[in-house]
Amino acid sequence: VALDELTVIERYFRPLAGEGAFDFFDDAGLLSVPSDRDLVVTTDMVAAGVHFLPGDPPDSIARKALRVNLSDLAAKGAMPRAYLLSLALGERTGEAWIEAFAKGLEADQREFSVTLLGGDTIVVAEGPLISIAAFGLVEKGRMVHRFGGRPGDALYVSGVIGAGAAGLALLRHEAGPWQKLPNETRKWLIGRYRVPEPRLALAPALTACASAAMDISDGLVGDCDKLAAASRCSAEIAAEQVPLPAGLDHGGDAATLTRLLTGGDDYEILAAMPPEREAAFRNMAGEAGVPVARIGALGAGGGQTQVTLAGRDFPLYQRAFVHGARRKR
Amino acid sequence: VALDELTVIERYFRPLAGEGAFDFFDDAGLLSVPSDRDLVVTTDMVAAGVHFLPGDPPDSIARKALRVNLSDLAAKGAMPRAYLLSLALGERTGEAWIEAFAKGLEADQREFSVTLLGGDTIVVAEGPLISIAAFGLVEKGRMVHRFGGRPGDALYVSGVIGAGAAGLALLRHEAGPWQKLPNETRKWLIGRYRVPEPRLALAPALTACASAAMDISDGLVGDCDKLAAASRCSAEIAAEQVPLPAGLDHGGDAATLTRLLTGGDDYEILAAMPPEREAAFRNMAGEAGVPVARIGALGAGGGQTQVTLAGRDFPLYQRAFVHGARRKR
Repeated sequence: VALDELTVIERYFRPLAGEGAFDFFDDAGLLSVPSDRDLVVTTDMVAAGVHFLPGDPPDSIARKALRVNLSDLAAKGAMPRAYLLSLALGERTGEAWIEAFAKGLEADQREFSVTLLGGDTIVVAEGPLISIAAFGLVEKGRMVHRFGGRPGDALYVSGVIGAGAAGLALLRHEAGPWQKLPNETRKWLIGRYRVPEPRLALAPALTACASAAMDISDGLVGDCDKLAAASRCSAEIAAEQVPLPAGLDHGGDAATLTRLLTGGDDYEILAAMPPEREAAFRNMAGEAGVPVARIGALGAGGGQTQVTLAGRDFPLYQRAFVHGARRKR
Repeated sequence: VALDELTVIERYFRPLAGEGAFDFFDDAGLLSVPSDRDLVVTTDMVAAGVHFLPGDPPDSIARKALRVNLSDLAAKGAMPRAYLLSLALGERTGEAWIEAFAKGLEADQREFSVTLLGGDTIVVAEGPLISIAAFGLVEKGRMVHRFGGRPGDALYVSGVIGAGAAGLALLRHEAGPWQKLPNETRKWLIGRYRVPEPRLALAPALTACASAAMDISDGLVGDCDKLAAASRCSAEIAAEQVPLPAGLDHGGDAATLTRLLTGGDDYEILAAMPPEREAAFRNMAGEAGVPVARIGALGAGGGQTQVTLAGRDFPLYQRAFVHGARRKR
């Protein structure tokens, strides 16, 4: 970047400053937390070649970096308020990239009612790499955890599973049934990989009904393993009940189905639901306009999630998608 | 890293989890903010070759990454509570590095009573790069800002200025009076570059007395420019009043003195003090065990900080140290 960083802040980031950011004329931001709310904090990094492709549009990179964090807040039942942005630019990142990146953030700030509280910009040999820390508020004592699920709870997912994985496969020109889809559908799948949809509309239904929840970032099956382990339960998923992208016919092909169930980049919600609250959850989700589907249940015991197809054990060649060696901590 | 990331978390990061981190068995952390406190949030990245040298000990890299953030909180009058860690490991970073890095964090968590709330670990071609977001609490409405200084306010600094710059010059084998210092002093200067001292003990004195404050990360003069600009004031610094590292005789050499006054990596506090509160500030700082010195004053008008030496204008060949193109936003 030939640009002075103060100029970058002045031109592109200052318009993103919200309450408590002091227009970035300070060392730190200030966040007021109402006394009836808890603050939920999360952080996720995205890097070129790991979470996005180097040629992806800068505005979609910005939106993905923000949305993967908002997705974590949604799964905890929290409504987002603000975020911090750490941006490591590559030595050859130009002003046009930064401008488009900031425009992506601006669009999503409006869409999700969040503002930028502060940040740091550095230049490194290899970039860009973006780390966001996001802050959300939840009614005191009502944060939804990964643990808390109990044997007998139903498992639900929002939206469809495998769209992000199919989008990435398309961007990588990998063979599969996604290649046969109409142009519009392929564009939609790629869009789901590049710009996930954080399910914030589902947050109230989760705090009201769920015993446990998490967002699905590394593939449904592996993430279900994590929810079950944190809840000290076993888990069963019936593959035919998992909503897949419309028109994507895996034809019973094990490799394709595995890819969709374990491919990652879904950013949908996986939630455990006590049976007596299932009806209320479906109602609330319906009113919020978020499709949800029952895909299985938690059981007693432990071990890895058992996946069945039409009542028979379905063998998986992998359980989770590894972004480089990315793991949530 | 050959290690599975879940193993890394289990072995090295789980012991750092504090209240609200749920032992990292969740997607996000929970921070309770007492109703009489505001939450101050800040973020800073450090990268190899920019903020530390590739061969620096991993425990000192960890401590620097955390301390530069705690230093921001100190300058705002906030007491640190917790932090989030985003860690981008290099492809060749080994387990011994991670172990030593975590040990550095552990030592500083004890020293500064902070705990790890959550984080994210990824692997990139070039690393390590560390982004920390830190959270501190300050009495409601008492955060100290960069703006707020007024003409006539005295300017104070904590500790000594130029130690970090001299330490970096030593590590880079650069010629200068630092080369003639005794072994012990040179070690101390290098230690100041690698592991800065966040002036948290000064926070109560700042909230009680300062009209404005910031931490000095990019060099005294350039950072004073920022404080003065944010406060819409001019500023004057008398170079002979700036406390320099003991024994470091610049002999009136302009290049050496400039280096010390603009070299960065001080992580001391620069504060503006209304005259009627100077005595109270000096008393409180003394009781807290933090040396402070009056180095100049804010004035009416604007423009760059005027530096004088023995009453004469002192010419600077640079005003601020640029870490790569690092700037605080």
